[in-house]
Amino acid sequence: MSERRQTPVRVALLGCGTVGSEVARRLLGDAEELAARVGAPIELTGIAVRRPDKHPELPKELLTADASGLVESDVDVVIELIGGIEPVRGWLLTALRKGKSVVTGNKALLAEYGAELSAAASESGADLYYEAAVAGAIPLLRPLRESLAGDRITRVMGIVNGTTNFILSAMDSTGASYAETLDEATRLGYAEADPSADVDGYDAASKAAILASLAFHTRVTASDVYREGITGISASDIVAAQRLNRTVKLLAICERVAEGPEASESVSVRVHPVMIPRTHQLAGVGGAFNAVYVEAEAAGELMFYGQGAGGAPTASAVLGDLVAAARNRVAGGRGPRESMHAALPVRPMGETPTRYHISLDVADKPGVLAQIAQVFAVHDVSIAAVRQRDKHSTASLVVVTHLARDAALEATVNEISKLDVVREVVSVMRVEGEDS
Amino acid sequence: MSERRQTPVRVALLGCGTVGSEVARRLLGDAEELAARVGAPIELTGIAVRRPDKHPELPKELLTADASGLVESDVDVVIELIGGIEPVRGWLLTALRKGKSVVTGNKALLAEYGAELSAAASESGADLYYEAAVAGAIPLLRPLRESLAGDRITRVMGIVNGTTNFILSAMDSTGASYAETLDEATRLGYAEADPSADVDGYDAASKAAILASLAFHTRVTASDVYREGITGISASDIVAAQRLNRTVKLLAICERVAEGPEASESVSVRVHPVMIPRTHQLAGVGGAFNAVYVEAEAAGELMFYGQGAGGAPTASAVLGDLVAAARNRVAGGRGPRESMHAALPVRPMGETPTRYHISLDVADKPGVLAQIAQVFAVHDVSIAAVRQRDKHSTASLVVVTHLARDAALEATVNEISKLDVVREVVSVMRVEGEDS
Repeated sequence: MSERRQTPVRVALLGCGTVGSEVARRLLGDAEELAARVGAPIELTGIAVRRPDKHPELPKELLTADASGLVESDVDVVIELIGGIEPVRGWLLTALRKGKSVVTGNKALLAEYGAELSAAASESGADLYYEAAVAGAIPLLRPLRESLAGDRITRVMGIVNGTTNFILSAMDSTGASYAETLDEATRLGYAEADPSADVDGYDAASKAAILASLAFHTRVTASDVYREGITGISASDIVAAQRLNRTVKLLAICERVAEGPEASESVSVRVHPVMIPRTHQLAGVGGAFNAVYVEAEAAGELMFYGQGAGGAPTASAVLGDLVAAARNRVAGGRGPRESMHAALPVRPMGETPTRYHISLDVADKPGVLAQIAQVFAVHDVSIAAVRQRDKHSTASLVVVTHLARDAALEATVNEISKLDVVREVVSVMRVEGEDS
Repeated sequence: MSERRQTPVRVALLGCGTVGSEVARRLLGDAEELAARVGAPIELTGIAVRRPDKHPELPKELLTADASGLVESDVDVVIELIGGIEPVRGWLLTALRKGKSVVTGNKALLAEYGAELSAAASESGADLYYEAAVAGAIPLLRPLRESLAGDRITRVMGIVNGTTNFILSAMDSTGASYAETLDEATRLGYAEADPSADVDGYDAASKAAILASLAFHTRVTASDVYREGITGISASDIVAAQRLNRTVKLLAICERVAEGPEASESVSVRVHPVMIPRTHQLAGVGGAFNAVYVEAEAAGELMFYGQGAGGAPTASAVLGDLVAAARNRVAGGRGPRESMHAALPVRPMGETPTRYHISLDVADKPGVLAQIAQVFAVHDVSIAAVRQRDKHSTASLVVVTHLARDAALEATVNEISKLDVVREVVSVMRVEGEDS
């Protein structure tokens, strides 16, 4: 292009794991193509790694163990792919305060200190981009922040953690237990040696906080997110879902909630297992894929689908952000600020309207359903459907409720579990989506 | 927000049909929320319509029949929702040359004069946004232009015209003829009185040109796009597809093509009916919905799904662009320029590799298949599958080919149709996607 300037945009890379090494490879290998898209050369000036001697594939002169020094050096953009809170937080704040733009995929840091980082970026006029933090390669944050900026998003619901989706998909197709399936996932490399961040829902909760913040113009942190993982999901839960022609997914759900026409709005942000109909488009999302539904007042229903993790897909998101930040450097502008003007309150989980599926083994005698139904009535929980069937000397009873306060549903289940006629609470899970 | 400035961003609206009236309603009704997102008030200064007296629902003082005067007036952003080439092209060029940003959904104009408009925007530093031009509410162009700016897109394939998708979906489920189904679509308001722009593929071809331009950094105009509509699709074609567990969709296909390892790249941009497997995710996109698959080297396979038309959904895209343009005004920057640096040649359809499905009624006697197979061999077309079955005194023969030059496939079909043993060519259609 005739508009190409010669002064390069100088880039520092912090971290060189699966994603970082892919980013480095593209920056070094596709320099000409990136330069054409930015309108100026992109120069990778340094790569901070813990052990520079462990990266023989990279140019020696670029490697350094001094991340702090690299951040302080003469660079325009800092790409951070190390992860974790400290010391990364300090480095990125330093970079932003000095006017250097930051591209990061650090969901934990953003979900905790997003406000602080965003304020630092705002003050110095630097860009803070983090498309890679949620749903890997899927362009999701930019559409939420920019494309839908003139609409009112009412709901974001999606599969944002590949490890748990792999485990749940496998449990659904094999009937194996959670423990067996986790072992298999670990062996295949889909789960880490310490799988807690994934299976306990921390990773998804960080992503939910980021999604809700952008969707509702409201700062939501990870600690605001109600979180349940998948470690309690049993083979019985999966069978219970299958009997209803449903499947179990770990969903991140962010929604606007308003009680009554006059009530002020709040947002519910949560991560928990959900039974969804097999006909639901999220039900067909298998293995390590991610998919996110977005509902907006004017746009209606949108879906975004793609690879949620992996070196190359995540590097695609990082490089997209880098090109945006670099273009802004060249053009002298900056990307849109985060707009947290709505500042809606986050609704406690107990006050959030949800629907429950409850599967019980009960005594096979008359009056049992009446007794159980009475407990629902006392807690003001309306029953949508009941299915009963004999099974040896006990009977199996399945109840699906209408929407009710989550705390009322929980209290109902607690009370029911104490009834003499209830032999066992086989499965309790929230449900989303209409049966077709 | 404390950052809010008081000087408003002044906006002119050209056209007030289905989409325009929804945009006007939101601009007038949600002013406070839009102002919070932009960081400055948005002021709608005028609405140009053909007959101002026909819009009693709008403030009288805003309405004018003088679009040209409105464009020349003191406004920062011009939203154009009139459509067509002239006189709109002149107005938008005037606006851009005077540094006014333009938001438009005019796919025909962009597919024809995108380069001229883009150059005018570039010279004056104004923004030119047109998310509404392709796939209505689905955030698609911004992801292509920005999120994937650091990746290499290899393929964009999608359902981008709701009218034809409605007709083909209905033909597939009812077995009715094209003519009957078009009548029904017109009665239901899914097809216009003159349906040519949709059913002859012009609308989809304009969108394909826009998609290919952004995806491949290469200026592609509507006249570069190979185009076949759906008017020739018969109930027999639908049945032929169903027998192969496939369905017929009108697809816009944009792909990079390189012949041999040393060959330079070109792009193929085309719109035509395609048989795709029923298991393909695009096969399940029914009614007036749109869905677009994007394949990129690093990101892998992505899908975007949502409403492709309608007042409110399209207004969502327009207002997203307006907020972006207005934010740039407030921040003093501008959005990323279009980058057409690759300038790849557009491959003629005849030279494009495609696969054909051919369904024939042939004489039921020995040697017929050998005779037909010989024609394929002469044209260097490799056969992937053959299915033959008796049907009274003739036999039905179905051939699916491997990839071959489209011109070779066409020549093969022509020659086969002249064979004495061929009673009728029942259906010829291109196929995409592997059978599962």
